[in-house]
Amino acid sequence: MLPFDLIEYQNRLQKTKNHMMERGMDVLVITDPANMYYLTGYDAWSFYVHQMLVISLDEDQPIWIGRYMDANGARVTTWLNDENIMSYPDYYVQSESHHPMNYMTEILKKRGYGTKRMGVEMDQYYFTAKAFMQLQCGLPDATFLDGDLLVNHVRMVKSDQEITYMKRAARIAEQAMFRGTDMIRAGNRECDVAGTMYYNLITGTSEYGGDYPSIVPLLPANKNTGNPHLTWSERRYQEGEAVIVELAGCYKRYHAPLARTVSIGQPSNHLQILESVVLEGMEYVLSSMKPGVTCEEVAKVWHDSIKKHGFEKEARLGYSVGLNYPPDWGEHTASLRKGDKTVLQPNMTFHFIPALWFDTHGIEISESIRITSDGCETLANYPREIVVQEPHRHNGQAGMVSL
Amino acid sequence: MLPFDLIEYQNRLQKTKNHMMERGMDVLVITDPANMYYLTGYDAWSFYVHQMLVISLDEDQPIWIGRYMDANGARVTTWLNDENIMSYPDYYVQSESHHPMNYMTEILKKRGYGTKRMGVEMDQYYFTAKAFMQLQCGLPDATFLDGDLLVNHVRMVKSDQEITYMKRAARIAEQAMFRGTDMIRAGNRECDVAGTMYYNLITGTSEYGGDYPSIVPLLPANKNTGNPHLTWSERRYQEGEAVIVELAGCYKRYHAPLARTVSIGQPSNHLQILESVVLEGMEYVLSSMKPGVTCEEVAKVWHDSIKKHGFEKEARLGYSVGLNYPPDWGEHTASLRKGDKTVLQPNMTFHFIPALWFDTHGIEISESIRITSDGCETLANYPREIVVQEPHRHNGQAGMVSL
Repeated sequence: MLPFDLIEYQNRLQKTKNHMMERGMDVLVITDPANMYYLTGYDAWSFYVHQMLVISLDEDQPIWIGRYMDANGARVTTWLNDENIMSYPDYYVQSESHHPMNYMTEILKKRGYGTKRMGVEMDQYYFTAKAFMQLQCGLPDATFLDGDLLVNHVRMVKSDQEITYMKRAARIAEQAMFRGTDMIRAGNRECDVAGTMYYNLITGTSEYGGDYPSIVPLLPANKNTGNPHLTWSERRYQEGEAVIVELAGCYKRYHAPLARTVSIGQPSNHLQILESVVLEGMEYVLSSMKPGVTCEEVAKVWHDSIKKHGFEKEARLGYSVGLNYPPDWGEHTASLRKGDKTVLQPNMTFHFIPALWFDTHGIEISESIRITSDGCETLANYPREIVVQEPHRHNGQAGMVSL
Repeated sequence: MLPFDLIEYQNRLQKTKNHMMERGMDVLVITDPANMYYLTGYDAWSFYVHQMLVISLDEDQPIWIGRYMDANGARVTTWLNDENIMSYPDYYVQSESHHPMNYMTEILKKRGYGTKRMGVEMDQYYFTAKAFMQLQCGLPDATFLDGDLLVNHVRMVKSDQEITYMKRAARIAEQAMFRGTDMIRAGNRECDVAGTMYYNLITGTSEYGGDYPSIVPLLPANKNTGNPHLTWSERRYQEGEAVIVELAGCYKRYHAPLARTVSIGQPSNHLQILESVVLEGMEYVLSSMKPGVTCEEVAKVWHDSIKKHGFEKEARLGYSVGLNYPPDWGEHTASLRKGDKTVLQPNMTFHFIPALWFDTHGIEISESIRITSDGCETLANYPREIVVQEPHRHNGQAGMVSL
């Protein structure tokens, strides 16, 4: 049932412990569901309640602590021994009188961690201000250290098995992009496009079933193409509109994001100019990405390229990508931008999304990239250009999909 | 473009200010995306970066502060004046050297909030331990108060417009349940069922387009039917299996959850016994839910009913439901359980999910409920029983859906 060999989990755990030692931690409290999955295989939609994984340098296995009704799921999905899976009663859930962290703190104390140097993921979505406060109150003699992104950094260089999963995710992304953008026609509703994308993202291919991506398909259209994080509505598309599509295939929680810009009918001259600027810059960047180069050097290649045409871009060009849970598929470690000194290594993976956004228009064409031994490769194989759709479909059969 | 009249937003804001006054707050910092949407209309998948809405008792409008590339989306989706929309530069995003809260804190200071009594949502997913720490460091003269769930409590009693949206969400849930469970047959993959559900959840009906639910369809099957928060895999169903389905239709961020248990072929005797126990208890509960009754009284009705048959249930029976963003569609306020003294009022809405889970099996049959003037009504109209599927479909056409 586990998506990786036990030895791969053991390696990940050992690397995590090495980082803990370097940072002077005895214990690491992990609340990021991606890090929990990475180290143990735990996979369930239970991160809306408090839960944690506890790693101690002197223990062979982490401890999982969560809600009682999720403990059985932890037994089923992880390689942990049953005695390392503990849980709090249901009356601690979303209660104004009982906080789960109080219960979990008692467990930590009983294990002798109350006086330890304890790392916590300080800027992680599911480690709330109150969770930390309750943890501090319950363990007054512990020393807290910021363990944010510690495991995320271990995740940056992928194993071959992880790359295999990301390539399967890319197959799924290609299919969802193709079938979804085929629905972007005058008269169709935005939600119909999103639904078609979702159908293809989740059913996957005949070989590989899709998992849920950590971000929904983003579909800003028309005057909103400069607003990259809008989703969709019931509105019907009209001829002449541009639509931005950003989606990711996901396989066993590993993502391959892909963005394209669609034009319903011929794209405007302006959009075509943006396209040529972006594609030229992408070519330069893809030629530059290889082991030994830093993220900020990659960013400079891009900025130099678009500057020739009079453009500037404020946002980062991309970020480390792979395993994650909602609300983000990025790994929060390296970004392709000025100041990021991360040195590229083989099997690092990035979502390279050098979008250009303006007040009422924009363009996105992206690639998910793996650093190879001497360069890089794109995970997806999808025409790198504006997707031009005939406003109305000529083939009446194209809309039928056998479920 | 706004999903509600301006006057409804003004009412919500005024109620929020009244609660702030009762709790001695001058300023309230809101980080819950559902609360941001509730008060302003702000709607984008941007909650994976730090952002906030700031309400001051002496200001007519809240201030939105977020990432620079999302500010335009705030201009488009909210009723706020442009000067109330502020943003931080992109190099603050997921950076180890710059934290967005530092930038936002400077804005708060400039507005004169540095010495105020400031509410913060202490146990909200997107208000991390580090965000609070940075806020405290930046505003050493402010007094911080726990404003967690303050707006959530305002949200509990729905307006008629909100109920209309939840009923549309229920129409969508019915359709996704019907089309999705129709795919639960021997030989089909779990991911094909999930994909079909998603297609129907997102495309919605011909009248109402669907929005993304805050939780993915949950589909534990076979020996995992006691593990309610597992999702799906590539595995193929087999004859004789049971499958639990929990999903929600979503319309303009308002949810109507619905759970059913499916049997591929005739359900086991044991499952049929569980069904009769659950349905009898549900009838008693639905007869008891009306204005004036407390949540714990409702829970007692259930526990008394199943106790007659020798069953007990640890988990809460349900929770306040409505507007939300991932990772939860519950509102985190009232729960149907012992100790919850919340008094039911007309237009409160609950997901009543009196599931029974055991180590290797379980049953879920749920209803989303609105409290009426003298009782309650279910939002969805869906047969309240185990869904029994023929293992193999006899009608070859049923699998075709026109996209």
